[in-house]
Amino acid sequence: MKKRKIPEASIRRLPLYYRYLELLQADGVERVSSTALSLRTGLTASQIRQDLSYFGEFGRQGYGYDVPALKRELAEILGMRQGYHAVVVGAGRFAEALVENFPFQEYGIQLSGVYDTAPEKVGGTLGGRRVYHTDELPYRLAAHPAEIGILTAPAETAKDLANTLSDAGVKGIWNCTNADLRPHHGTPVIENVQLFDSLFSMCGRMGSREGT
Amino acid sequence: MKKRKIPEASIRRLPLYYRYLELLQADGVERVSSTALSLRTGLTASQIRQDLSYFGEFGRQGYGYDVPALKRELAEILGMRQGYHAVVVGAGRFAEALVENFPFQEYGIQLSGVYDTAPEKVGGTLGGRRVYHTDELPYRLAAHPAEIGILTAPAETAKDLANTLSDAGVKGIWNCTNADLRPHHGTPVIENVQLFDSLFSMCGRMGSREGT
Repeated sequence: MKKRKIPEASIRRLPLYYRYLELLQADGVERVSSTALSLRTGLTASQIRQDLSYFGEFGRQGYGYDVPALKRELAEILGMRQGYHAVVVGAGRFAEALVENFPFQEYGIQLSGVYDTAPEKVGGTLGGRRVYHTDELPYRLAAHPAEIGILTAPAETAKDLANTLSDAGVKGIWNCTNADLRPHHGTPVIENVQLFDSLFSMCGRMGSREGT
Repeated sequence: MKKRKIPEASIRRLPLYYRYLELLQADGVERVSSTALSLRTGLTASQIRQDLSYFGEFGRQGYGYDVPALKRELAEILGMRQGYHAVVVGAGRFAEALVENFPFQEYGIQLSGVYDTAPEKVGGTLGGRRVYHTDELPYRLAAHPAEIGILTAPAETAKDLANTLSDAGVKGIWNCTNADLRPHHGTPVIENVQLFDSLFSMCGRMGSREGT
């Protein structure tokens, strides 16, 4: 595939397309139109065509998109074939929920370590994985690099831990704490999960609906 | 305050403003300019002025926004003063992480019940709260209504559970499963958390950065 620069806004929608293609493929569907994708995703067909135009050869007028081929290509762009390694920093309930339930391995991400500072956690296991002390992060990552840092530690430690991860060569920080991290030039890509914003944007829409 | 219709895209950004106002207030800051908010949130000052123009009286040229007053107003719009009740459906690790760590009560949301179908969970407790059988949802909600349903059950049960919650009068569904729920006319407001999309949009941006 020719490497064209995909806009960030489009990249943000690719996982959604990927999930739908996965459902379609599980149903044995071989091709899909932008109109059908529109009905399932709630995005407009023209938005979808624009987002997927960066994968030109998989959509043809009157044919639609080739489901397995487009899905393979999206997996590539989304890093699922990069063999990424991830460390989890913070061994609380949320980390446990992620480690036990999130299908990292199915999508090509290898969890290579869980870290915490609490004496009662270090040396124990979380979801079957050994928990190391956060102080060990730098030298453990020097020996076995990881591209992804998953932050689930308390909010007040997020910024320092993000710096530690960044110094240790991590390329992306998935910030599941309730502190915002801002990207700086040359630092890892940062994704703030922010469950607070998600819940209260819903509550705000509930109220605005009542008002109409 | 006069009731003006606030666009959904603006409502989605209000929780972010709320969090920053909270930090500012904790630091004793009494007023803030859109430029200062812009530096902290990463949104443009003109976007911020437009979003907050629906709260006209709190921003004045050359003065900025009155922090406590604007924060109070946002709390109102975000439903934090509505006395909302929420039920949690699905008593797994993620539910445990939420119930134990998410500051629902601090923001005016009362958790009124946890539900699951697993015999080993029903009758037990989760984060100090009794777990009821999901079959009890309709009559328990008939007696003690809840406005918010928090879905943390397995993805394949999400649609049926959303219907149950909708029939029981819930006004908003915070969908933390990895199944998408689509809103229909007259159904509750739906917010899909989708951790998958968040993680892989980050991975996609990591790859696109490498390519430049």
